[in-house]
This record gives sequence, structure tokens and C-alpha cells, in this order.
Amino acid sequence: MKLYTYFRSSAAYRVRIALNLKGLPYEAVPVHLLRNGGEQLGEAYRDINPGALLPALEDEGALLTQSLAIVEYLEETHPQTALLPADAAGRARVRALAMTIACDTHPLSNLRVLRYLVHTLKLDEAAKLDWIRHWMRLGLATFEAHLARDGATGRFCHGDTPTLADCCLVPQVFNAERFEVDLAPYPNIARIAANCAALPAFHAAHPSQQPDAE
Amino acid sequence: MKLYTYFRSSAAYRVRIALNLKGLPYEAVPVHLLRNGGEQLGEAYRDINPGALLPALEDEGALLTQSLAIVEYLEETHPQTALLPADAAGRARVRALAMTIACDTHPLSNLRVLRYLVHTLKLDEAAKLDWIRHWMRLGLATFEAHLARDGATGRFCHGDTPTLADCCLVPQVFNAERFEVDLAPYPNIARIAANCAALPAFHAAHPSQQPDAE
Repeated sequence: MKLYTYFRSSAAYRVRIALNLKGLPYEAVPVHLLRNGGEQLGEAYRDINPGALLPALEDEGALLTQSLAIVEYLEETHPQTALLPADAAGRARVRALAMTIACDTHPLSNLRVLRYLVHTLKLDEAAKLDWIRHWMRLGLATFEAHLARDGATGRFCHGDTPTLADCCLVPQVFNAERFEVDLAPYPNIARIAANCAALPAFHAAHPSQQPDAE
Repeated sequence: MKLYTYFRSSAAYRVRIALNLKGLPYEAVPVHLLRNGGEQLGEAYRDINPGALLPALEDEGALLTQSLAIVEYLEETHPQTALLPADAAGRARVRALAMTIACDTHPLSNLRVLRYLVHTLKLDEAAKLDWIRHWMRLGLATFEAHLARDGATGRFCHGDTPTLADCCLVPQVFNAERFEVDLAPYPNIARIAANCAALPAFHAAHPSQQPDAE
């Protein structure tokens, strides 16, 4: 398998964690989001992913995009180690947690949106940071509320083994720390992120451990 | 089943289509996004969905959020009519198309984001419309490119029966028309949206057909 990735891409980071948790080896193909005007915007990468976003995964001729769709594919083609629980309601909960990050939080502050804020709307640095932190806090508060109210929350987001929800949470926590969002209001998130960080699969997927890290 | 919905909510519209395609009856519980300062922001609805977003689904005691997680749940609990293909690569393609709308397009122009643009960033109407149309066009162009390049595209997004991808596309096309985004550059999308509109399941899910329509 070949993963098109960038060390700091939140969506690629999710898939790296999933691949590692399942013990699947892969070739990392770095796509630099800032160099050469953004390699993801070039024709070569658009032939792989017309959306010009990371990640993409090549597997046996199939060309897959969208981090959550890729993890679901890995779950179906390599069921062990399972990243979704067995029961439908539990699976729905894990997917909903993942989407709280992947649909409602992360897309609001990815690179192309920040560029629009700065280049088109002419926001200054302070207003840009307010935007980033506003949506991150809203997303993390929602995620925390889901964790706090449900007995299914365990050492990890759902029970005592990592799931797709943890694959999404950890990169978002990395982003929150990068933009100095205080995690104190989110004790379950902070606790679970620490439990994840202790696992080799999460450590090896961390941006600092990637071949293209700067 | 009880669906918390608003006639014009794009995410609720997706789930209404899926429920109709599967022939599942449900009770619609309207949550008015504009009345009373936004009923989704009140304590009663936050007890159901801490994220204060639509839709939510109640089924046999389970309380589900996130439209795509809800449709996956329906797919697992009521496999007929199937909204995902049988093969892993096909399922990944359908999910990726759905997420091109649900992660990369729709979250950038939902009500809370538009409010931030107007109330916090003080954008005027023209700049707000530019924002909405910019992200819609980008999302639709990506979706169209995926449709155009793949032989799996048929009468619908994936083959000749509707899938989760069509459940997401049709509400986004409704939004595009509402904001006067020209669909001419997206011929596959326009064709498939017309095929969907001809089906009773899609018609009955249309905002204009809802009990809370205005």
C-alpha cells in the first residue's frame, strides 16, 4: 500500500494511526502542502485526488480518498485489529465521534480555508487565530460532552481499545496544542489522548516521526 | 424511529432520503434553526445532541448523531434497500463521494459558520455569498471530477441504483440552486440529480414536502 501523506496533515495522520494499529506496512509518499506552491495542487497529485487534499491510498490498483472512507476500507479488508465495535449502536457512536472531528471541526481550519481567510478576507493574524480556536473549542467541547455522558467511554473513546474515534481525536489534539488551545476544559479528551500517546502505533504516526518531518 | 429534523437542513435531508429509500417509517420532530434564537441551541435539544446540530435519530433507546453515521447504522440494521455496494473498493468510493460533500463542502457554509462570518467578521452580503459559492463550486467540481473519471458512475453516482453518495449529493444540489450556483460545469451531477428527483423517495424527502416547510 502507498499512502500519500504530509507529516502535519491531520487527515493523513488519522490514516497513519489506523495502518499502524492494524500492523499494515505501507510506503509513505510525501506531498508537500507548502513547497512549490503546494504539491497537492499540481497536476500529478490531482490525477490521484481531484480534490487536491490529503491523504490518498493506493491499494491493489484501487485509488482511495477521504481519511474516514480509507479507514473503513482498511477495516473491511483487514478486520484485525478492529477499529469499530461489533454492535451497530456502538459503531454509530464511534463514527459520530470521528465525524465530530472530521466533518464539524477540522475542515473549518485546514490550509485552504486559512488561505481564504488571509488572502481573500484579509484577516490579520489575531482574527485568524480566533477563528481557528473558536471552531476547535466548539468541536472539542462537543466531543467531550459525548464522552462525559456515555458509560461506553473507557480508557479510550469507546471502551478500552482504540477505535476510529481515537484515530481522529489524537490529530485534533495535536492541532489544538499547536494553536495553544487549553485542554483543561476537556478532561476526558486529555486523559484519552495521553493513553493513546503511550501506544507505539500512535507514537509512530506522530508528525515528528514522519520521514518528511521538518 | 424519531428523526430530529429541519426542512432545510442539508444533513437531515440526507437521512430523510435514506430512510425513504429503505422504506422505514419515522416520526419527524421539527427543530427550528431560526425560531426562538435557534431551537437547536436550547437545553432540550442539547440533551439529545450536545453538538447542537441536526439531525439526530432515536431508535430503540439509542440516540444517534451525525448524518453519515446514522445512514451507516440504518445500513447495518436494515440492509435492504442497500445504500452501499457490496465490494470494499466500491464502498470506499461511495463513502469518499459522500464525504466530499459532508466533510469538505457543506460544513463550510452551514448556519453557524455564516453567522460567524456576518456577526464576528462583519462580512457584507456579497462577501458572504462569495464564500458560500466558492466552497460549493470547489466541492461540486471535485465531486464531478470523481464521477467523470470513473466507469463505476452510472444512472446514479455509483452504478444504477442510489447510494449514500446520492443521499449527500441531492441536498447539496438543492443548496447550490438556492444560492444560484450554476450547475452547467457539472454535467454528471446535473444528470444524476435529475434521475434522483424522479424517484418518490427523494421527492418525499425534499424540503418543500416536510411538515415544517415554510
